[in-house]
Amino acid sequence: MQLQLSTWPEIEAYLKASRGVIMPIGSTEQHGPNGLIGTDALCAEGIARGVGDRTGAVVGPTIGVGMAHHHMTFPGSMTLKPSTLVLVIRDYVTALAEHGFERFLFVNGHGGNIATIQAAFYEIYSDMRTLGLPPIRCRLVNWWDNAGVNSLSKQLYGVAEGSHATASEVAVTQHLFPDHIKTAELDPPIAPTGRFYDAADYRRRFPDGRIGSNPGLATPEHGKQFYDAAVEAISGTYAEFLEEA
Amino acid sequence: MQLQLSTWPEIEAYLKASRGVIMPIGSTEQHGPNGLIGTDALCAEGIARGVGDRTGAVVGPTIGVGMAHHHMTFPGSMTLKPSTLVLVIRDYVTALAEHGFERFLFVNGHGGNIATIQAAFYEIYSDMRTLGLPPIRCRLVNWWDNAGVNSLSKQLYGVAEGSHATASEVAVTQHLFPDHIKTAELDPPIAPTGRFYDAADYRRRFPDGRIGSNPGLATPEHGKQFYDAAVEAISGTYAEFLEEA
Amino acid sequence: MQLQLSTWPEIEAYLKASRGVIMPIGSTEQHGPNGLIGTDALCAEGIARGVGDRTGAVVGPTIGVGMAHHHMTFPGSMTLKPSTLVLVIRDYVTALAEHGFERFLFVNGHGGNIATIQAAFYEIYSDMRTLGLPPIRCRLVNWWDNAGVNSLSKQLYGVAEGSHATASEVAVTQHLFPDHIKTAELDPPIAPTGRFYDAADYRRRFPDGRIGSNPGLATPEHGKQFYDAAVEAISGTYAEFLEEA
Amino acid sequence: MQLQLSTWPEIEAYLKASRGVIMPIGSTEQHGPNGLIGTDALCAEGIARGVGDRTGAVVGPTIGVGMAHHHMTFPGSMTLKPSTLVLVIRDYVTALAEHGFERFLFVNGHGGNIATIQAAFYEIYSDMRTLGLPPIRCRLVNWWDNAGVNSLSKQLYGVAEGSHATASEVAVTQHLFPDHIKTAELDPPIAPTGRFYDAADYRRRFPDGRIGSNPGLATPEHGKQFYDAAVEAISGTYAEFLEEA
Amino acid sequence: MQLQLSTWPEIEAYLKASRGVIMPIGSTEQHGPNGLIGTDALCAEGIARGVGDRTGAVVGPTIGVGMAHHHMTFPGSMTLKPSTLVLVIRDYVTALAEHGFERFLFVNGHGGNIATIQAAFYEIYSDMRTLGLPPIRCRLVNWWDNAGVNSLSKQLYGVAEGSHATASEVAVTQHLFPDHIKTAELDPPIAPTGRFYDAADYRRRFPDGRIGSNPGLATPEHGKQFYDAAVEAISGTYAEFLEEA
Amino acid sequence: MQLQLSTWPEIEAYLKASRGVIMPIGSTEQHGPNGLIGTDALCAEGIARGVGDRTGAVVGPTIGVGMAHHHMTFPGSMTLKPSTLVLVIRDYVTALAEHGFERFLFVNGHGGNIATIQAAFYEIYSDMRTLGLPPIRCRLVNWWDNAGVNSLSKQLYGVAEGSHATASEVAVTQHLFPDHIKTAELDPPIAPTGRFYDAADYRRRFPDGRIGSNPGLATPEHGKQFYDAAVEAISGTYAEFLEEA
Repeated sequence: MQLQLSTWPEIEAYLKASRGVIMPIGSTEQHGPNGLIGTDALCAEGIARGVGDRTGAVVGPTIGVGMAHHHMTFPGSMTLKPSTLVLVIRDYVTALAEHGFERFLFVNGHGGNIATIQAAFYEIYSDMRTLGLPPIRCRLVNWWDNAGVNSLSKQLYGVAEGSHATASEVAVTQHLFPDHIKTAELDPPIAPTGRFYDAADYRRRFPDGRIGSNPGLATPEHGKQFYDAAVEAISGTYAEFLEEA
Repeated sequence: MQLQLSTWPEIEAYLKASRGVIMPIGSTEQHGPNGLIGTDALCAEGIARGVGDRTGAVVGPTIGVGMAHHHMTFPGSMTLKPSTLVLVIRDYVTALAEHGFERFLFVNGHGGNIATIQAAFYEIYSDMRTLGLPPIRCRLVNWWDNAGVNSLSKQLYGVAEGSHATASEVAVTQHLFPDHIKTAELDPPIAPTGRFYDAADYRRRFPDGRIGSNPGLATPEHGKQFYDAAVEAISGTYAEFLEEA
Repeated sequence: MQLQLSTWPEIEAYLKASRGVIMPIGSTEQHGPNGLIGTDALCAEGIARGVGDRTGAVVGPTIGVGMAHHHMTFPGSMTLKPSTLVLVIRDYVTALAEHGFERFLFVNGHGGNIATIQAAFYEIYSDMRTLGLPPIRCRLVNWWDNAGVNSLSKQLYGVAEGSHATASEVAVTQHLFPDHIKTAELDPPIAPTGRFYDAADYRRRFPDGRIGSNPGLATPEHGKQFYDAAVEAISGTYAEFLEEA
Repeated sequence: MQLQLSTWPEIEAYLKASRGVIMPIGSTEQHGPNGLIGTDALCAEGIARGVGDRTGAVVGPTIGVGMAHHHMTFPGSMTLKPSTLVLVIRDYVTALAEHGFERFLFVNGHGGNIATIQAAFYEIYSDMRTLGLPPIRCRLVNWWDNAGVNSLSKQLYGVAEGSHATASEVAVTQHLFPDHIKTAELDPPIAPTGRFYDAADYRRRFPDGRIGSNPGLATPEHGKQFYDAAVEAISGTYAEFLEEA
Repeated sequence: MQLQLSTWPEIEAYLKASRGVIMPIGSTEQHGPNGLIGTDALCAEGIARGVGDRTGAVVGPTIGVGMAHHHMTFPGSMTLKPSTLVLVIRDYVTALAEHGFERFLFVNGHGGNIATIQAAFYEIYSDMRTLGLPPIRCRLVNWWDNAGVNSLSKQLYGVAEGSHATASEVAVTQHLFPDHIKTAELDPPIAPTGRFYDAADYRRRFPDGRIGSNPGLATPEHGKQFYDAAVEAISGTYAEFLEEA
Repeated sequence: MQLQLSTWPEIEAYLKASRGVIMPIGSTEQHGPNGLIGTDALCAEGIARGVGDRTGAVVGPTIGVGMAHHHMTFPGSMTLKPSTLVLVIRDYVTALAEHGFERFLFVNGHGGNIATIQAAFYEIYSDMRTLGLPPIRCRLVNWWDNAGVNSLSKQLYGVAEGSHATASEVAVTQHLFPDHIKTAELDPPIAPTGRFYDAADYRRRFPDGRIGSNPGLATPEHGKQFYDAAVEAISGTYAEFLEEA
């Protein structure tokens, strides 16, 4: 059940039965020569909607641009300043909290968002306590961060999974957007790895944008498997989150 | 050509030929008993993508939550504070400007956004001048604000078009999302009109959320006509915008 | 009754009888070769005080510098960033709301302020709802935006009224400040018109600062007529605003 | 020479001869039973204009609402948050600095502004250095803080001068606004003195708003003497400021 | 070499030989019945200074109050809002970057700071790129997050190490402040564990403030071992950080 | 009693007997050729702790970096923007106010902080009133600003005391940190004096950083005398502050 595809009386009815909501959050940033710039937003949105379908949860609108400063040397990458992203998350959550939503499960598609999302949660808790508002709970899950997805990526790609423009995330977008599968020469097949600092440093170390991955191995069929594994895992997390004392 | 469905080398190539980009911006707010909460975001996104298809322009990610404070007494409505929305627009535009985009056509789906979008444009111009960055141009079009759409809505609905949860915007979402057409009793058929102030005042004056409209008249076929008219008009505006000296 | 020329016991007494207040807001920016830089502030202040005299309303202190980024390439122009102006309006309104003022009629002298003022109203409504404060109502009138002023300018100047450094606003300042009437060669007599973007673009298109106007036609006698028409119209709006349910 | 009563070509000409500007800043806050709420703004503006007349300096628009939190328990008092006032001063100064103004003499009418004005100067210096902009100089003078005014107030009022709603500032407004001289019973004739903290504490200690003063002693003739003394002293300061290496 | 105990000519000389600096950051928050409120700040500061002594690095002033919202239901706990902490870190780093420091190793004493510190790094990188400033590198190490400390805590405490008010951090403060060793009954000896959300939720789950730990096992002798292990590990990290290409 | 060296139950017990707290605030900035960069923070912290020992007051964590923009042309100097420092002071005070602290005596070591600290107090009062929180009282004392210290510095140094990198503050650090006494040639022995504006202007006027002082006269024995005088004076102020109605 997508919030944007519902009417307000439908949401009013929903809130009589549940106080939970799924919040997809991604990023719009380069994903190597054959990965879509929207990969992180598209994966988070697609999987979050899958969780919504499976659990009956309302799924909020996707935060499609995240914290991707370090990708800004690649054309098409977009970023919010961390301070802006904190405000966006705060406004999304406090708006829904006004209607009575209490448990917010953020389904995240981008590792670079994690720190800022967690900072935002505390900014929200702090504001709500200052204002004397009723308590809410915010929790973050990364779609790839569960046993099912992990074992699948190890089995399918081993080290070629990588850590940015990963084979698995490219596969998920191929499953979700079969009409937009891109091909490109990947040289070297497995990208370099390592630590990085700012955007210029990132480009110097990872010239085509990938880190440690060979997304040339991705297939739509793999994507379906990853998608199913992620939806199953996160649906379990959501159920547990709602029941938590 | 959607930015999120492109790769960074594709955007790099695009920028050699064009400096323009289409930016959809909407809202996530109640649209009466049978209107989708996402109406403004969905219309802006759908029409912007239509313009992109017709003109070959890149279409950026949709800003899906806008300035909708006055709808916050209806469950499911979301809003950014105006000050947050200014920062979001600033971050979107300055990120793309870094890559060389110079002309930003915002396709807007929500009247309540207009003031804040225009304020944001000047905030951006001010920041860029302070920083000594190259000039860019931002322009706003509301998808419904052109002769084609206006004459169509007059002809189809007359005064029943209204000004919030309009028959035409509900029709566009019916065209775009035929599986999510909602029905509801609308009483009175044509909603009241008038000035309003804050959210409580809004609810008091417009108890089911509509202003002046009878969206029960909407059909998907109408929606297709509105969509086509809007895409045609805005495609013309975009072409003119790119050519402007 | 000017707030700044009253004592606090006088305001205390006023509040027992009325909850309304007039707030003048203008701008300090170039107004062409013979227009005063303070034109927008001076017109708004003068007319607001006239409304105060006629209706008995308290008139607050003038916000004399507005959002005039696009005029910054002309010496003497000043501007607040839109985000600063939002905060100023918020602080003015919330301060007076603490004392019990409830209806704020902003009398505006500058088209470029409109978007930011409206954004500010929602920022205020949003803050007050978050804080659980009693509702207030803010409303904006542009002094030139009424039938009386419009018909007068059409009759006196036709197209030579223009849209910046207009003949009518220059006339109003000549009426209010007869010792500061400036003359200058205006070449061409009627300035060019058109769309503009940032400050550099503005200067390029409108080299002497005027848009579409011939303020050489202004006289103090015209100014008196405009002033009277505006005071009458806005006094009516104020009365209606106070009575509104 | 008032900036608001000048044209942009006049300011362009001025800047060829001088880089200095006078900036009046006051407050809109209670000044006891017979003092005008605008006392601090009116004194600062009047005296600043007198300095402008005497020295030929441009006088900018008055910042009429200052930092007056502690007066907010008296009807009609207004205040900016300190953080807002910093932004306002920053925007005023940086706007004029863009045109080439380099030396900013703030003529202040309110003791409660001093800390925030000085904080603002460093905020500005810090921003300008970060941006690599050319250096400017900001300086603050309080209109009452010079030998001429001090000796006059001692001679005329002794301890009855006080420290808020002072006899001298009430006298200056009586000189400047002879049609708005207010009378009120002052009981006790000389108000109490002492330290205070927030607004509630202020009201408890100083129930009619005055601190230590007997403004019943003020006369318009005194006001003229104070005005002349202040204009003379500050004109000297301005001249010295411009010549400083 | 502590920055605060040096003169400016000494820092000028240092910068000719090195561009690195150690930045201690902690927190001031409850650490259970026998842990010092300053534990995180004191550990970070003490260990950072040890690293400075061993490597010759300059050690900056300690950020002593961090992001500890969730501890605010325990008397004496302090917190910065995440948004404030971002600004503090930004100001510290950009100030030192002005003098030529380029590599900033933050030695952190509080898990709750991690997200905000990382968000701050990207805020800084983003600001510096916008301003066209030379690149810097910021890196975070948690003093307890290395093989030496981990194996020691496992060996000494096993599961009783816990995750807040840990035995190891209490031990380090006992080593550093032998005159301030506190004792308290710990009931149960090993505190409960689990997930938590806001401050009220934290207190409900962890009534005496500890999570999973038995800090009654801590001794100053253990503290010396932890201290030595942390200093050795982080000194190695710092050396590697300086040499990184 | 230092907050950081206490446990939360100890602070809980303290609050049953007292609502007062001492807050040291300093700066990290050049103090001439032989003064420590941390002089202002170290003096404020040391003296504040002395006051705490003498009066039994809790002493909070030191704000070690203040507003020192004007020293930024000397290596090692650090500064917060005034706007950041306001937020830091606000967060410190509001955190402690949550636990019931009501009277905050800031012991300040840096003249350049005064304006920003006072602005922060009003920002705090304003926020707390807006939020309807119970009133608190904040007060500022500069450690050198009392009869005891003043007469001592006059007697020991006369005019050579100066106003930055003063002989007395260098002496206090020599007393507190006898292992870090620095020597340097001071030429001229007594530094120049005068007004200054931004950081570049400061360096031009005061090339070695001192203003008006000869800190070569400082001795640790003098430092002990200053320290004792300051602790005695401020202990008296604190006692009076607590008792104030």
